[in-house]
Amino acid sequence: MPRMASRFRINKLVVIGVGLIGGSFALALKRARAVKHVVGVGRTRRNLAAALKLKVIDEAQEHPARAVGDADLVLLATPVGQMAAVMAAIAPHLPPKAVVTDAGSTKRDVIACARRFLGGHFPRFVPAHPIAGTEMSGATAAFRELYRDRYVIVTPQRETSAGAVKLVRSAWEACGARVVQLDAREHDAILAAVSHLPHVIAFALVNALARRPNPKRLFGFSGRGLRDTARIAGSPGEMWAGICVANRDALLAALQDYESELEQARAAIENGDVEALKLMFEQARRAREKWLVKKN
Amino acid sequence: MPRMASRFRINKLVVIGVGLIGGSFALALKRARAVKHVVGVGRTRRNLAAALKLKVIDEAQEHPARAVGDADLVLLATPVGQMAAVMAAIAPHLPPKAVVTDAGSTKRDVIACARRFLGGHFPRFVPAHPIAGTEMSGATAAFRELYRDRYVIVTPQRETSAGAVKLVRSAWEACGARVVQLDAREHDAILAAVSHLPHVIAFALVNALARRPNPKRLFGFSGRGLRDTARIAGSPGEMWAGICVANRDALLAALQDYESELEQARAAIENGDVEALKLMFEQARRAREKWLVKKN
Repeated sequence: MPRMASRFRINKLVVIGVGLIGGSFALALKRARAVKHVVGVGRTRRNLAAALKLKVIDEAQEHPARAVGDADLVLLATPVGQMAAVMAAIAPHLPPKAVVTDAGSTKRDVIACARRFLGGHFPRFVPAHPIAGTEMSGATAAFRELYRDRYVIVTPQRETSAGAVKLVRSAWEACGARVVQLDAREHDAILAAVSHLPHVIAFALVNALARRPNPKRLFGFSGRGLRDTARIAGSPGEMWAGICVANRDALLAALQDYESELEQARAAIENGDVEALKLMFEQARRAREKWLVKKN
Repeated sequence: MPRMASRFRINKLVVIGVGLIGGSFALALKRARAVKHVVGVGRTRRNLAAALKLKVIDEAQEHPARAVGDADLVLLATPVGQMAAVMAAIAPHLPPKAVVTDAGSTKRDVIACARRFLGGHFPRFVPAHPIAGTEMSGATAAFRELYRDRYVIVTPQRETSAGAVKLVRSAWEACGARVVQLDAREHDAILAAVSHLPHVIAFALVNALARRPNPKRLFGFSGRGLRDTARIAGSPGEMWAGICVANRDALLAALQDYESELEQARAAIENGDVEALKLMFEQARRAREKWLVKKN
């Protein structure tokens, strides 16, 4: 007899922070018929109203504490800077069955918050991070295909319940994502390099240009190169400020590597050393090509 | 009686450097029926053979000097580092009627080359720069729509013949481009900021990542943010090394502005100053939004 997959289904999902990330998670689970009822919690009524209207959520709540009663799964999808406050608020109200997970871009600090603020519920907390996103934000930016074929990194701790990990894995797989388990420190080092650093670079570049005498003319003559390089400078400042500080040591290490490359390029430009620049640039070009081949 | 536009037509176009830029120029003019015969000059037989096969050019030549006889328009579309040698090679063979133009990303150094190496032909040299391109290169990357609605900046000098400027303007307009006249110094300052600096940044970022212990894993977990930020690191190293050195002073000034922004961000990260980072990042986000609105 063929083995029947037990149908994965969450009765009550609570999404705290109904933006691009939380909203897309809800939409993808709904699409997969893997969730019955979605409660959305948010700071602004306007965003929650939009989320209701777009059927991203079925019920809106302003207070996290009131939302989590009888929850099967709670997704914390707020900026990482707000995780501590949200965890402290929900901890006394979580039903024992509830599995809590997050979508934060940094893992060690979120785990430290959970250890401190979720208390006895910590074993049912599964730290996770979907490697997906756009520069858009808010419930109106959410779309159900955001996680299709994207990685979700889970970083369970020694105490984390296997059942809780399984539930969170199943939920992300129902969204079409590929779930990978990593050490939290490794996650933070990798993300500092491939995501947090590029964001700092994009913000700094746009600010440097905007401060020049005639930014209007400047931007007017820009091409696709700057548009792509600067795209992620459209990301929400509050969220990224929180991420940068939460992942400070890993980000500073990545920034130092980058600044040393930049200094080498600067020295070669100052010296008019075309050969040295050519070597550096060709090296980067080949590294990028190898990486693109691996991705496809 | 309605005014009849005199039909713009070039009998013989010589494209020196049949890559993305030169090849697309030829294809666009052919599409507009604005050129009768296109001679392509290149350093590799393979690229010229591809250009012939794809009908980017009608005739291939390995030596610039032999190609320019009876030319009406000569486009120099080689890397800027090769302009001096090419100009020196063609100068004795240019017919008096020939208008020479270029597509170099820097203008003051190309103008200085032309003054020195084109000699008496200098008044028929029109310095120009199409703000278009992709990270691809070679004749196979050329496509006739590359210049549609893109800016082409011309930077004629005091001596430049009005008729020569008119011919070059008409040719670019026939490609669908919008021609704008700028001072060469202003062109170089603007392009240093919006194009040359972003390239240096992208090359440095990819090199910094590629040097880390496990680049394969690192790139594997990267998302769309890094992919876009690093796209222009796929550009040809030789070409960009030449541009960076040719536009050294303007690029170093832009690099300094950028590094000072980066240092501010680093200090705020070190101090865990979320508020300062948030301000910086939001400022960049708003500047980018204003610029995108202006572009559309």
